Amino acid sequence: MAVGKTKEKTLSTTLVKNSYGKSVVRLTKVTRSSKPPTWKEITVETELFGDFADCYYDGDNTKIVATDSMRNTIYILGAKHSLDSIEDYGIALAKHFLSEYSHVTEAIIRIVENVWGQIPLSGKHHPTSFVKTQGDDRVAAILVNRKEAKIESGIVNLNVAKITDSEFSGFIRDKYTTLGETSDRIFGTTIDAHWKYKRPAANFNCVYETARKVMLETFADHHSLSAQQTLYAMGDAVLEAVDDIEEISLILPNLHRLTFDLRPFGMENTNEIFVSTSEPYGTIKGTIARKK
Amino acid sequence: MAVGKTKEKTLSTTLVKNSYGKSVVRLTKVTRSSKPPTWKEITVETELFGDFADCYYDGDNTKIVATDSMRNTIYILGAKHSLDSIEDYGIALAKHFLSEYSHVTEAIIRIVENVWGQIPLSGKHHPTSFVKTQGDDRVAAILVNRKEAKIESGIVNLNVAKITDSEFSGFIRDKYTTLGETSDRIFGTTIDAHWKYKRPAANFNCVYETARKVMLETFADHHSLSAQQTLYAMGDAVLEAVDDIEEISLILPNLHRLTFDLRPFGMENTNEIFVSTSEPYGTIKGTIARKK
Amino acid sequence: MAVGKTKEKTLSTTLVKNSYGKSVVRLTKVTRSSKPPTWKEITVETELFGDFADCYYDGDNTKIVATDSMRNTIYILGAKHSLDSIEDYGIALAKHFLSEYSHVTEAIIRIVENVWGQIPLSGKHHPTSFVKTQGDDRVAAILVNRKEAKIESGIVNLNVAKITDSEFSGFIRDKYTTLGETSDRIFGTTIDAHWKYKRPAANFNCVYETARKVMLETFADHHSLSAQQTLYAMGDAVLEAVDDIEEISLILPNLHRLTFDLRPFGMENTNEIFVSTSEPYGTIKGTIARKK
Amino acid sequence: MAVGKTKEKTLSTTLVKNSYGKSVVRLTKVTRSSKPPTWKEITVETELFGDFADCYYDGDNTKIVATDSMRNTIYILGAKHSLDSIEDYGIALAKHFLSEYSHVTEAIIRIVENVWGQIPLSGKHHPTSFVKTQGDDRVAAILVNRKEAKIESGIVNLNVAKITDSEFSGFIRDKYTTLGETSDRIFGTTIDAHWKYKRPAANFNCVYETARKVMLETFADHHSLSAQQTLYAMGDAVLEAVDDIEEISLILPNLHRLTFDLRPFGMENTNEIFVSTSEPYGTIKGTIARKK
Repeated sequence: MAVGKTKEKTLSTTLVKNSYGKSVVRLTKVTRSSKPPTWKEITVETELFGDFADCYYDGDNTKIVATDSMRNTIYILGAKHSLDSIEDYGIALAKHFLSEYSHVTEAIIRIVENVWGQIPLSGKHHPTSFVKTQGDDRVAAILVNRKEAKIESGIVNLNVAKITDSEFSGFIRDKYTTLGETSDRIFGTTIDAHWKYKRPAANFNCVYETARKVMLETFADHHSLSAQQTLYAMGDAVLEAVDDIEEISLILPNLHRLTFDLRPFGMENTNEIFVSTSEPYGTIKGTIARKK
Repeated sequence: MAVGKTKEKTLSTTLVKNSYGKSVVRLTKVTRSSKPPTWKEITVETELFGDFADCYYDGDNTKIVATDSMRNTIYILGAKHSLDSIEDYGIALAKHFLSEYSHVTEAIIRIVENVWGQIPLSGKHHPTSFVKTQGDDRVAAILVNRKEAKIESGIVNLNVAKITDSEFSGFIRDKYTTLGETSDRIFGTTIDAHWKYKRPAANFNCVYETARKVMLETFADHHSLSAQQTLYAMGDAVLEAVDDIEEISLILPNLHRLTFDLRPFGMENTNEIFVSTSEPYGTIKGTIARKK
Repeated sequence: MAVGKTKEKTLSTTLVKNSYGKSVVRLTKVTRSSKPPTWKEITVETELFGDFADCYYDGDNTKIVATDSMRNTIYILGAKHSLDSIEDYGIALAKHFLSEYSHVTEAIIRIVENVWGQIPLSGKHHPTSFVKTQGDDRVAAILVNRKEAKIESGIVNLNVAKITDSEFSGFIRDKYTTLGETSDRIFGTTIDAHWKYKRPAANFNCVYETARKVMLETFADHHSLSAQQTLYAMGDAVLEAVDDIEEISLILPNLHRLTFDLRPFGMENTNEIFVSTSEPYGTIKGTIARKK
Repeated sequence: MAVGKTKEKTLSTTLVKNSYGKSVVRLTKVTRSSKPPTWKEITVETELFGDFADCYYDGDNTKIVATDSMRNTIYILGAKHSLDSIEDYGIALAKHFLSEYSHVTEAIIRIVENVWGQIPLSGKHHPTSFVKTQGDDRVAAILVNRKEAKIESGIVNLNVAKITDSEFSGFIRDKYTTLGETSDRIFGTTIDAHWKYKRPAANFNCVYETARKVMLETFADHHSLSAQQTLYAMGDAVLEAVDDIEEISLILPNLHRLTFDLRPFGMENTNEIFVSTSEPYGTIKGTIARKK
């Protein structure tokens, strides 16, 4: 079944897109020279685009960077780089593949960072012991090609809920509608936010901290007429607060808490007892940008 | 914090993209009139695009189809439709939202079907009792807008492995390389395949059955010089076998089985004992189309 | 903070139970000399009990078998053993730890086997290519101490459903009851079954095959007045069919399919359209043994 | 296949154990009258033991409390009870089933609480908006029968790591050993702790807070000669600090961070770059009690 280099010409099909890389490469970096030392835990994925078609057509591997070599590279650059922000490290990693291999046209690096902090200890913090401090993760995706670099950062799995200041009414009522209108519902969601930058260089850590803080505060403070409106308010507030962000996309699942009907049991539910549901859920999406 | 209709004009930001829908709506349909009766279990997601910006800017819900109404619609159309194929049902569902709501410009329906079969019973099959017969699922995504319909079907989570006829050598050796070359390695993967159709109408069930069979057979029979080459061979074979498919995309994780080193224990590993790994893994992607 | 050997005596607390081992050791074994070759994929856990208290009290590791050495042992014995059944392999592994280390008093080995088969190919089967053929897994737990060996085998994640011959009525109606009675409901469950043997030696593969077949057939054929009754019927049938089994325990989640109310939409649900739920679910447990 | 009441007598098998209940009942409770209001999100499971054998043998449901009624009861008692602690609520729930149904001999209630806090807002906290503040969950299991009540509380999924003060050496070196000794390794684990009380009544919330704090501090401060020793130190410290706890069981997975070998790349790894692994992992268990 081995085929010669001429295989492509004789085929009735053609390779219109291709890429490959290494997924779920998990790296822990300790920087012992810092005062105090730092602990960083990230999961990295690489994806390379380039002149790899011969490998698909003929099994010709001469231009293939083994995914095992990509894995090595992740650790090697992890050792050389400060890893101060996942974005800066991801840019270094993407650029490495482009500079090292002339037939690679584009590299995408995706990173998830589990956020840890020092263990609190009698008012202070223990310098060399750490605890995973939050349920939400920080993420980044870096794309670098021969023309440009695009950086996207984000937050995933940030669980929030508000117990008042959330309404939902005035929506379309037709023969498919059974949902009642409400002026006071629970609004619970898991924030998934991704933003793009005005320029490749930014203070990524500061942007992340501010964006997370502003989204939480806006969610808390907003009088919500719909999940859509709160989504917009959050995105708008982030753009107001962080000059370096050009555009932000949010996905908010509407994780419904349904009022449990206590009337069959001779009781009244004064908006306090809810069935928390995990499915189905509404999914609200929106991308907010600065006006040009 | 409520704002008037003029809000958008005074903002420094703008909504550049938006959509929303209902996710993870799980429907079981039994068709008792069939001989034998049928059992279908699917999970549906809807996503609508259209004139919803006022809801984001102002919390004005007058054009909002509640996601709860979308959920109702999934069950109502599930009752009316034969559900013979998830693609035909998805098309009906997408078209419903466009015909019912003039301000909806596009609807995307995503469906996952868990594949069940009748329980085998002394050589026959029990007519009204079912078992989930395979680990892999059938999926479809249907996009309908005012101009066109695009249907994509697929298979996810199809676990396969071959214990011979898989090599990997001749790849780039540089200072980042430690992986050895091999002429006989285990090749294990979880097939994720998605295909597009030449035209909106096709015998979707027949296409699915053939594509699944051809991919399995090609994987089994192929002498693999790389995961990329096997990917191409599988896609090419599907296009050869199924005239209705225009293009197929495959994602093959390379789920490495590493030879366990028995030499420290005075034994030799004759290519029989492997560490099965779940991470990291290579991810190989490719899209194959007919030549124009 | 290091403490001397006398630490235990001065403590106000004491170690009342302890054990340790290695978890999620994943082994693939290919037996190339078989005709046709075989492919086996298992996940192994070891747990050792014995004279390890000094390690807990004082950090004295002189009696500690490193969990890394246990991992090595899993692969070494995997190479030496035929691995024809996970039970026989597990017994060999447990006995190894007891014979090798005189201070180990008990070893428990837990194994999960993902069930694979040869890829079907034009009516035959491909000899060296495999596909994961079912969603359910085969499991075993082997406990060996200085007095006895206990073997437990089982099946987990076997998804079944029946669309008729399932009733539920006559249950307690009191002020906490809102559920209606039904003479024809969907009964869907995921079978979790574990059985014990009359004696340590049995034809484990044959027992597994028969037990799985009998449970499926009984589930299919049984006219169910409750999930409990079907559970008993399945356990009873397995004991009838397999002489080597002494006792069987079943756990059946009642994965409710709720009739979707179509009346608000002017339609009738003729017992065909259901909301599949993943939570909450009933959990029905029972252990059935032979009468003495 | 229906059988009469005499079925048991004619069977060759017998029901030796049985129980049933409702799983994954998710309840959100808002207490609006508190200053500030409180938000509580829990997942509840019930399991009843009693005179249910006729249901298993004959499908006689006359003594069956429907699991749907148990679900109702969870919400009804959730409305009546302050839910100040999951233990107190679980005790009320278990006692309810025993007092309501004379043929129920034992009730087990298992509860998982996701821990939320108020969203921080400019130095203060927002009174009615909440965020899931930690990755670890609080759990409880309450068993009540006609003679006694047993309460067990715990913490699961508490991820911690220390980058110094962790050694592992002096363990058994034999022909199965390849692991080197180390005087300075990363020790990362996910704490799973469960404790029992001296008496049924305790200040459960205070015990939980103190146990969590003491475990974190002990893990941080301990100079570890083995995971076992650290486990003992943590359990011992909790018993020292919390008089109400009689016994504590800990399970510590040893989530290995393996030093990445940089030498092939002409670099040295100064104990800073690690491969984080998710499998396999060591599992260390121990139960610590007060000396009698």
